Order: sequence, then structure tokens, then C-alpha cells
Amino acid sequence: MNEMTPDASCEALAELKTALRKNRRDAHHRYFQMATVTAEGHPRNRTVVFRGFGADDASLLVITDCRSEKIVELRQNAATEVAWYFTRTREQFRISAVTTCVDYRCQSEEGSALREQVWQQLSEAARAQFFWPGPGLPLDTGTTAAVTDEAPDTFALLKLSPVAIDHLVLSKVQTRRRSQLTDGRWHEHWINP
Amino acid sequence: MNEMTPDASCEALAELKTALRKNRRDAHHRYFQMATVTAEGHPRNRTVVFRGFGADDASLLVITDCRSEKIVELRQNAATEVAWYFTRTREQFRISAVTTCVDYRCQSEEGSALREQVWQQLSEAARAQFFWPGPGLPLDTGTTAAVTDEAPDTFALLKLSPVAIDHLVLSKVQTRRRSQLTDGRWHEHWINP
Repeated sequence: MNEMTPDASCEALAELKTALRKNRRDAHHRYFQMATVTAEGHPRNRTVVFRGFGADDASLLVITDCRSEKIVELRQNAATEVAWYFTRTREQFRISAVTTCVDYRCQSEEGSALREQVWQQLSEAARAQFFWPGPGLPLDTGTTAAVTDEAPDTFALLKLSPVAIDHLVLSKVQTRRRSQLTDGRWHEHWINP
Repeated sequence: MNEMTPDASCEALAELKTALRKNRRDAHHRYFQMATVTAEGHPRNRTVVFRGFGADDASLLVITDCRSEKIVELRQNAATEVAWYFTRTREQFRISAVTTCVDYRCQSEEGSALREQVWQQLSEAARAQFFWPGPGLPLDTGTTAAVTDEAPDTFALLKLSPVAIDHLVLSKVQTRRRSQLTDGRWHEHWINP
């Protein structure tokens, strides 16, 4: 059972997609927690909404406000770890990833197109927040701008590219598998829960 | 509305207790995500189970295996941030805390008694894990020991003492309040969501 899969494919990512399908009746199944590190070396953690996979079918897409603290944190340390717990199937994916920020200054055509595409899929309520006063500022400071149809400069797309995945299943017999991306290939093996 | 509450009491902690009550029908309402930082400065994140409040009625209790990676991480950096999202009431508490580890070497009578008390409240299934082979090791390495009635040396209690709380409520009108412990007093003010 101590299998090694030195292959470009990743079993854990396939299982993540299965979990997304099996848990889709829960409104919160697309929420996960994303940890970052501040310049002072302190951990930060918050709940974000999963916005789909990137063109590579592996990276996780998240949106954020360019004025948020996580942008400052990720600029100096792009490492993140996602903790994604699915309540219905009782399984957890811990995903270590490297984050790329795609904002209005993005030079890549592919990145800009993806950012615009995700923006177009947002609800009116989700869009409105990017026109609010800066998050984290004292209440009622800053101004609310008029909502526009095109993505505002405050809107950024984060691409989280997985480098390691720890998949824990809390069924009657617990299982845990560790997947690691090394030299472009995924190596997977079972570990003690 | 830009209130300051330079008082020993903390509104956010009272609201956390209300949230625990209002969400108690969800089996997962006592699960939260706990972020730490490795010696190399990488973020780590995992789901843990809330085991109640400490004697101060403010610190969060969590149990862990002394052989787990988070013990190594917390030994060199005791800072943690909890992300606790309540799915029923749609609110999030981000709790920055300092962690104290209470293990079998604990010299304090109060700490030892609390560790033993939490152990006694655990289910058989929860206890059994502390007698399994070391978590994270390749599967089937290590040995399984016989379950004992008293807490084994692998069992540790973590006390997370909050120093800052960010409470976000995703109701129709979003609200967000920041609470900070300074010189033993909580200062709270509303901020932009």
C-alpha cells in the first residue's frame, strides 16, 4: 500500500475534484481557509471562496481586493497553505501552494483574460465590494465608488499552484496520503493518519 | 459607530460564544483551521477540533499528538491564527493567539489537571489515535500500543490565548469588528468589511 506514483498526474487532485462534486449540496463546500505569513513571521488565516481551477486544471483560483493585507503578505512571501475541509464527506485537503497575483498591471494576455473572465462571472453583490472603502480601515473612512461593468483596479485574481497535498479521510478506517510535486512530477505515498 | 471599548471584557469573545450556541446543530461547528509557521517561514494550516475554553474563559483548547509537525512549529514560533467560519450564521472569527503546550512534562498543577480532564472527556476513538504509530510517517511504520486509561505521553493540550480577533458577519449588511488586547485590556472598533 506504500505506493509511489512518480507521474505527471496527481491522484489527490482527482480526489479533490470528486470531493467538490460529492459535497456540492453544501453552500459552504467552496469555502476554504488560506494561511499566509506576515513580514514579521506571524501566521495569518482567513476563509476565501474557491473560484475554479486555472488553465492548468490544477491551480486554485481565488479573488481578492488589492487593498487587503494578504496582498502585502503574499508580495514578500508567496507561500500559502490551504486547509479545505469537506463536511459532508469528512475529508481534508491541506494544499501547500505558490501564489501568483494577477492584477490590472498583468502583462500576460492569458492572465488578463482569465482575470476578466472571473470578474464577469461574479454576482453584483460580490462585485460591489471592490468599490467599497478599503477593507480593514476604520469604518466610514474612504469612499464608495460607482460599480462599473469592467474589472476595477482593486480587483485581483490569485492563482494558487499546488506543490504538496496532504489528503486525510476521516472514514471508519482513516487514510492519509501525501503528494509532492518534484521536478514537475507528482510523487504520492500513504502515510500514518 | 466607531466605538472604542478599552475594557477588560471582549465583545468578540462573547459573540464567539453566541455563535457556538447558534451553530450547535452543525456537527462541524466545533472545527476550525489553525495556521502556524515553520522554521523555514512557510505557512501551515490544518483543521482541528475545539475542546472548550480554558480556565480564563478566553483561551481555546485544542488537543494534539506530541509527534505531530505542529508541535515542532509551535516550539520555535508560538504564534497561531485561527480561522473559524460558522456556516449556519455565516460569520467568521479570525483569532490571533499565542500558544502554550501542556504535555506530560508540565510542572503546573493547574495545567496537568486540565490536560487530564480533557483526556477523560475524549471518546475511545479519539483516544486510540494517540496509541497509533507516529502521524506523518510512511504507512505501517511504527507500532500500535495498547490503549490506557490515563493520558499517554503522546497526548498534549494546546492553549491558544487570543491577542486579536477579527469578526466578520456576512449578513445582508456586512459588519466587521477588530478587537485587540493591549496591556491586558481589549480595545474594539468597527472597520470596513
